[in-house]
Amino acid sequence: MTDQPGTLMAAEIAEQPEVWRRVVQDGQAAVDEVARVVVRRAPRFVLFVARGSSDHAALYGKYRVEIELGLPAGLMSPSSMTVYEARPDYRDVLVVAVSQSGGSPDLVHAVRVARAHGALTLAVTNDAESDLATEAELHLDVLAGPERSVAATKSYTAQLLVLHLLVARWAGQPVEAAGELPRLGAQVLERLEPVVTTAQRYRFAARLVTTGRGYSYPSAREAALKLMETSYLSAQAFSGADLLHGPLAMVDPQVPVLALVPHGRAGEAMAEVLPRLAERGADVLGIGSAEAVSTCTTGFSLPAEVDEPLSPLLEILPVQQLALHLAVARGGDPDTPRGLSKVTETL
Amino acid sequence: MTDQPGTLMAAEIAEQPEVWRRVVQDGQAAVDEVARVVVRRAPRFVLFVARGSSDHAALYGKYRVEIELGLPAGLMSPSSMTVYEARPDYRDVLVVAVSQSGGSPDLVHAVRVARAHGALTLAVTNDAESDLATEAELHLDVLAGPERSVAATKSYTAQLLVLHLLVARWAGQPVEAAGELPRLGAQVLERLEPVVTTAQRYRFAARLVTTGRGYSYPSAREAALKLMETSYLSAQAFSGADLLHGPLAMVDPQVPVLALVPHGRAGEAMAEVLPRLAERGADVLGIGSAEAVSTCTTGFSLPAEVDEPLSPLLEILPVQQLALHLAVARGGDPDTPRGLSKVTETL
Repeated sequence: MTDQPGTLMAAEIAEQPEVWRRVVQDGQAAVDEVARVVVRRAPRFVLFVARGSSDHAALYGKYRVEIELGLPAGLMSPSSMTVYEARPDYRDVLVVAVSQSGGSPDLVHAVRVARAHGALTLAVTNDAESDLATEAELHLDVLAGPERSVAATKSYTAQLLVLHLLVARWAGQPVEAAGELPRLGAQVLERLEPVVTTAQRYRFAARLVTTGRGYSYPSAREAALKLMETSYLSAQAFSGADLLHGPLAMVDPQVPVLALVPHGRAGEAMAEVLPRLAERGADVLGIGSAEAVSTCTTGFSLPAEVDEPLSPLLEILPVQQLALHLAVARGGDPDTPRGLSKVTETL
Repeated sequence: MTDQPGTLMAAEIAEQPEVWRRVVQDGQAAVDEVARVVVRRAPRFVLFVARGSSDHAALYGKYRVEIELGLPAGLMSPSSMTVYEARPDYRDVLVVAVSQSGGSPDLVHAVRVARAHGALTLAVTNDAESDLATEAELHLDVLAGPERSVAATKSYTAQLLVLHLLVARWAGQPVEAAGELPRLGAQVLERLEPVVTTAQRYRFAARLVTTGRGYSYPSAREAALKLMETSYLSAQAFSGADLLHGPLAMVDPQVPVLALVPHGRAGEAMAEVLPRLAERGADVLGIGSAEAVSTCTTGFSLPAEVDEPLSPLLEILPVQQLALHLAVARGGDPDTPRGLSKVTETL
């Protein structure tokens, strides 16, 4: 550990383009091998199980499966097994457990029960020696390297990338676009200096709302968690559609909104949400296409050339930087947030 | 509409025992008939689709299916179909759309696509003439009667009850315990006078955290939404397990916590969470077993005799009353919250 607050988190944010390059170059063969097994076993239903940031990567995986493979997919509630001891019929089900550490006992238990009841099980972790990696029939290493900051950054985007590649290979799609990611990521990181100033805007905010749709909804969830765990503000994520269903009532000029408005369909689907936020006088930080960002109070535009399903990897970079600088501005240390440890041992 | 703030919501909260009696007495035959069709068609996967409060009823349904039927289940993301135009393989899938009004175009679209792609579809609505009821192959009316308050109360618990009965009949279980609910509900409502005083405690709170596990996790989600849409405070729900994974960092003596600690396993699973909240100096409002409530800062105890899967119907009653009185105390009108209409027409 270091004395400078946020040093670890800053270093791990900066490492991401390199991690992505490693996944694309060194991780591809393992992804291809797992994809071959999955295709052969032909699961008809996919369940993800995860907690914390990994749960947002799992949610991204669920969208990928629904959209690219057309398979019904869901997020498993571990408590059905741990608290209620359900004994499920998981034939024809692929269970994907996503965890940075691979050490959460409730996920290990869920995978064990799922495997014993017919599921094909896959662990996606950052530790090939972990209990979860051992318990599952298949394993994919996200190759992020040791993550020392309590706030997950590089392991999160590495999970997204591995899940993206897996679904693409399973669907028989090309994956060349992912090769552009390291370059685009480095480009985005270089242009993030203004985040230090932006963070000052939220210095005294008590709450914040994040929103996005489709592939960017997991990003909105991850943004809320990241801000909450590093800066202790009350950040809430809503899909753009759900926001209009009730929570819009709590948005006013005192509640800043972070809106993910990427190029492509996820951003277009936010077109109906932004005017409703404006009507309520909301202060909106947009992250995404230059055009959408220009209609927001402030924001960061991202490269237009990114492949649509990959934009969650780029759009989370300004968010991570914001969480880091906001935490420091508020006198905290995002590397070691109060009340948190790296592995949560819930049963 | 009336001039007295919250008159509609108060009346609809009070109606619930009567609604439950109607569901148990008049709705049982329709539930049995749908259960027979479902058993005959023998779906292997269950997907729920819903928004807002109905999404919390759907989440409860998902737990019921996972626990009682052992079938893999998930919540569908409508945007996979509406935004990304996914064309899924839904053979052997039961899709259950839950909606008070039955009028949300995105749910209607999701059901239409699901049905066209092989799913057995069921609409659970409060309007038998609605588009959703017409679009789905099967329909169950929750029999709550016209709901005029924008904040859903009686339609929510009626949805829970219908989903409970359906899963029980599908699993071949007796449903007699539900017959006790109207009496128990009336008992709880009679004892809720102190909520008026409790609401004063949160008069100036800007944020609030709600938490629960298992069957009570949907209640925690519904509690957060209800407080948010009526009282405009920033209320966030976490499963007890997820809370320990990061968000615990934002809990301090200034952030009140509403904890659902029912009799049975969902309450027992909260035993590890309450001490962690106490360590952080949290002000905890407990709702559930007298024993667990006695360890909280304040709270409401609920009857011990309720059948475990049915406790969500009882535990939401004090929450609804709290939302009502808090909204009024804060100068709002929960019948017509700002920025909201009863049917949300997201596409």
